[in-house]
Amino acid sequence: MALPEWHHSNIIWHLNTVSKSRREAQKHQKSCLIWFTGLSGSGKSTIANALDSALLNLGYHGFILDGDNVRHGLNQDLGFDDQDRVENIRRIGEVSKLFTDAGLIVMSAFISPFISDRAIVRSLLPSEDFIEVHVSTPLEVCEERDPKGLYKKARAGEIPNFTGIDSSYEPPVHPEITLDTSTHSVDYCVKELLCLLEKKGKVPCS
Amino acid sequence: MALPEWHHSNIIWHLNTVSKSRREAQKHQKSCLIWFTGLSGSGKSTIANALDSALLNLGYHGFILDGDNVRHGLNQDLGFDDQDRVENIRRIGEVSKLFTDAGLIVMSAFISPFISDRAIVRSLLPSEDFIEVHVSTPLEVCEERDPKGLYKKARAGEIPNFTGIDSSYEPPVHPEITLDTSTHSVDYCVKELLCLLEKKGKVPCS
Repeated sequence: MALPEWHHSNIIWHLNTVSKSRREAQKHQKSCLIWFTGLSGSGKSTIANALDSALLNLGYHGFILDGDNVRHGLNQDLGFDDQDRVENIRRIGEVSKLFTDAGLIVMSAFISPFISDRAIVRSLLPSEDFIEVHVSTPLEVCEERDPKGLYKKARAGEIPNFTGIDSSYEPPVHPEITLDTSTHSVDYCVKELLCLLEKKGKVPCS
Repeated sequence: MALPEWHHSNIIWHLNTVSKSRREAQKHQKSCLIWFTGLSGSGKSTIANALDSALLNLGYHGFILDGDNVRHGLNQDLGFDDQDRVENIRRIGEVSKLFTDAGLIVMSAFISPFISDRAIVRSLLPSEDFIEVHVSTPLEVCEERDPKGLYKKARAGEIPNFTGIDSSYEPPVHPEITLDTSTHSVDYCVKELLCLLEKKGKVPCS
């Protein structure tokens, strides 16, 4: 372990910075950001968590950013108006970038309804590191599931600007993959994603 | 790999969330935040980078948050007035917390001159996860080094509110460790920190 020494009369600021590629090599993977976008109740978090478990079981190193760990922490100062919504996604993008610099496979699960916001995140990363996953489960299925009772509240006018009800969802034009949980199991979705990660060279072929 | 299945008529939202402890176990370490505080030029980044290299060489998983990767990304919207300074440290604390949730040994290197700001970060984490490192190199040594020419500019009045010149630095009252790079080599500092991590059970005893 060669570490720099201080030289008091002639300081050498020798920063042995660990590169992203060394962190990736240590983890036997290439880092990336898997960005799940889709309606509330479409299955984004469920698929992301299942993929995260699968990656861990296979020996890879991942992490999930979602409403649970971001909205109540880093972004607790943000509301839901247009300006704050953009700032919310910007910060998530920047934090995701830090996690990819750490060599991790980052999964983010946010409705992120607007193309322009997702384009900002994509632009932060090398093009091969951004994997946009459109969880395309139809609105009627999401609303029937309504796992948090949010659609009911939105229909009753209690939640304004709810995506899919009175605020638009702009589907990705060229997502890296589209998954519909009304016609496919979570197991299938995870296998498709693992296959995509192999194809993109993020994890070795099994 | 046991993954949840979708049941269309009776949805089971089974989130197989990977816990912090499983991520730590995978990495054979306990996560923590090593918070380097000290004057500009005291050696925070140098020690942090040397520790990061040492950890990688020993097979552990770390990451550094510093001005280079935070100020130009996540916190690029923030200036240097009091309100923005507090928000800067708050965000760094929240992001550090996410990295510890990911099972990593996080090192942050910021002047962070005020006790109250560092107390906020400490309060975000379990008490055993916050390791405050006071890099106590004396002002006169830091100013003589002046690696970025900032002290010269501050003395010339070109940088107002410069810590140590016309803005105060509040040293930690009970830091977990104090390191002075005017009397000790980087190599020594890294060994002391590795020893502390062992004592705290963050990495196995060598």
